[in-house]
Amino acid sequence: MEDRGSRSSILDSRSSVLMANIMRTLKVSLGDRSYPIYLGEELLSQAGELLREAGCGEKVGIVTNPTVAEHYLKTVQETLGRSGFRVTSVLLPDGEEHKNLKSISAIYDQLIRERFERGSCVLALGGGVIGDLAGFAAATFLRGIPYVQVPTTLLAQVDSSVGGKTGVNHKEGKNLIGAFYQPKAVLIDVGVLYTLPRRELLAGLAEVIKYGIIEDPSLFGLLEEKLERLLVLDRALLEEAIAASCSIKARVVEKDEREEDYRSVLNFGHTIGHALESLTGYEKFLHGEAVAIGMAQAAAISVRQGVCDEESLRRIQRLIAKAGLPTAIPPDIKLSELVKKMEVDKKASGGKIKFVLCAGIGKTQFCWLSPEQIVTKPAA
Amino acid sequence: MEDRGSRSSILDSRSSVLMANIMRTLKVSLGDRSYPIYLGEELLSQAGELLREAGCGEKVGIVTNPTVAEHYLKTVQETLGRSGFRVTSVLLPDGEEHKNLKSISAIYDQLIRERFERGSCVLALGGGVIGDLAGFAAATFLRGIPYVQVPTTLLAQVDSSVGGKTGVNHKEGKNLIGAFYQPKAVLIDVGVLYTLPRRELLAGLAEVIKYGIIEDPSLFGLLEEKLERLLVLDRALLEEAIAASCSIKARVVEKDEREEDYRSVLNFGHTIGHALESLTGYEKFLHGEAVAIGMAQAAAISVRQGVCDEESLRRIQRLIAKAGLPTAIPPDIKLSELVKKMEVDKKASGGKIKFVLCAGIGKTQFCWLSPEQIVTKPAA
Repeated sequence: MEDRGSRSSILDSRSSVLMANIMRTLKVSLGDRSYPIYLGEELLSQAGELLREAGCGEKVGIVTNPTVAEHYLKTVQETLGRSGFRVTSVLLPDGEEHKNLKSISAIYDQLIRERFERGSCVLALGGGVIGDLAGFAAATFLRGIPYVQVPTTLLAQVDSSVGGKTGVNHKEGKNLIGAFYQPKAVLIDVGVLYTLPRRELLAGLAEVIKYGIIEDPSLFGLLEEKLERLLVLDRALLEEAIAASCSIKARVVEKDEREEDYRSVLNFGHTIGHALESLTGYEKFLHGEAVAIGMAQAAAISVRQGVCDEESLRRIQRLIAKAGLPTAIPPDIKLSELVKKMEVDKKASGGKIKFVLCAGIGKTQFCWLSPEQIVTKPAA
Repeated sequence: MEDRGSRSSILDSRSSVLMANIMRTLKVSLGDRSYPIYLGEELLSQAGELLREAGCGEKVGIVTNPTVAEHYLKTVQETLGRSGFRVTSVLLPDGEEHKNLKSISAIYDQLIRERFERGSCVLALGGGVIGDLAGFAAATFLRGIPYVQVPTTLLAQVDSSVGGKTGVNHKEGKNLIGAFYQPKAVLIDVGVLYTLPRRELLAGLAEVIKYGIIEDPSLFGLLEEKLERLLVLDRALLEEAIAASCSIKARVVEKDEREEDYRSVLNFGHTIGHALESLTGYEKFLHGEAVAIGMAQAAAISVRQGVCDEESLRRIQRLIAKAGLPTAIPPDIKLSELVKKMEVDKKASGGKIKFVLCAGIGKTQFCWLSPEQIVTKPAA
């Protein structure tokens, strides 16, 4: 118990150092499920203090993969150890094809071996796959234990780490199994983006572009104007784009946590995107690349449906292409197969899919389309 | 659409018939997760109308096992068909040893084959195992679809069908994987108890006795006075006991849905009970039998801890025995093994378990005990 006392005072003096390094703190306001998003540099090495602030118990299970572990596991283990946590790590194989119940079982087994209890905490250190797996394991272990998201890809930072969607894929489709379960905190360390492969950075940009299209003309304009600087990882600009994205995500989730209505606006570009990923076995495209194609196609459909102007469509397609992302469905994709994949889409109801149209930059409109209507005459 | 119109009018005329057969409607009040508990006779054959009232979508997946299916599946399929639902049935193998992720996967597979959507509904037709499996599958399919509990054992009627605890066992312990997820309605048909094996009826009684011990001296008194009539299935008495039990469960769940504090009062007798079941591979004891032993032991521990009087202990042990239930830990159980099982108890924290003591009939008190303290000097 004496140890605890002295640790507390160290913690206090560190806390003030800590605050200097956190550039921004955003909040997701969901009543007793509210949580902070910390955004800044060198947050990884302060994870211990931040988990203490989040009220995590004695044990922390870091869920990660070998690629991320090589770069960052030691840093996180050390900061947690310094803050007095007992740490165990679960290394899962890398890649979307391992986002399944087998990986979840591997997490359960280790948490049980280490005698995790209701106050023990899971820390997701990785991209979207790791975040979804760790979150779903936390949601369902002992009927729910706390977890913290530490996203290490741009995609996860601006999208999957915020909002509490957790889950795994089924062989018939993406994310068919899962739960809504909010983290206790999200730690976004912009520094990790410097080691991120360029292809993954661009894929993450697809989701940033999405936020501009659906909600924020000024973010879209910023991207049009300063994309080159973003692509060379200008730190201030990265932070601005991530903060804007997370703010939009937080506001949408606050309006409609369980996607009963408005939250599906975030699926702009995802109906076609998910079907493309599923059809190609999650191997050909990164998620953001498939979404990029989906957004370009959805914008074209929006024009055909008469809700989007031609100029917005051109701007959307131009920005996606400028970011080095694809816009067209590759010719080797059979459209009839794409239709079949859409039929098991989670958003389907009565054979129709709730499709998000763009009604000009920053505006959206929902409509119910059949899979056939979605893939008819795809834009080149 | 014309069909729908005519079905509606049939429904209206049936609804009034229906109401005559429902003796009682209790409510679990949890804001937007509130739901009714219907209690009466011949409710099974009215499931269609009741699911319509609960707002279930077009498709219903009945989860059951071969034993229950033989008695009741046709009745439920027919009423659902009459009410215009498209019905599919998932038959899972019978028994606690199948309460695992493999069974959950079997449910997922069928729901996906039948293209279940977010409004589609799962109906749990069976005992506690079926209810926990169906509920957990519903909680995690498409991040949560509606489900309805139709418990066919006394145990499930008074306990597991109410309160939203869902989940599966892990080889290291019971219910280690799961979610809190409330049903849309609970349909308790007292008539099913006439086909229930006597051993299962008695096991269910253990939980009824528990409610008396923890919350309701008058229910306890009723059981002491009229147990014989209950054991010959006096209908009015059965309904009274079930209604009293469900009311207590509902009030406890309303106070503390996610078992952050007070809900664990329901675990009276369960710490030792769960450990016994786990240690004997879920084969030697029915859940209620293990709980009966657990309650008798917990009452004895309560006396040793100085919070319970000797007379209450005697009354508890006498009522349990009178109900044909065991009170002692069998001599072939190794206490050291029992200790090990308790160490992975979900309610453990810092090596101690939140143990529910009886402070006289109708009153409880929590205390933190080590597994060793719990199994020391067990009562004969």
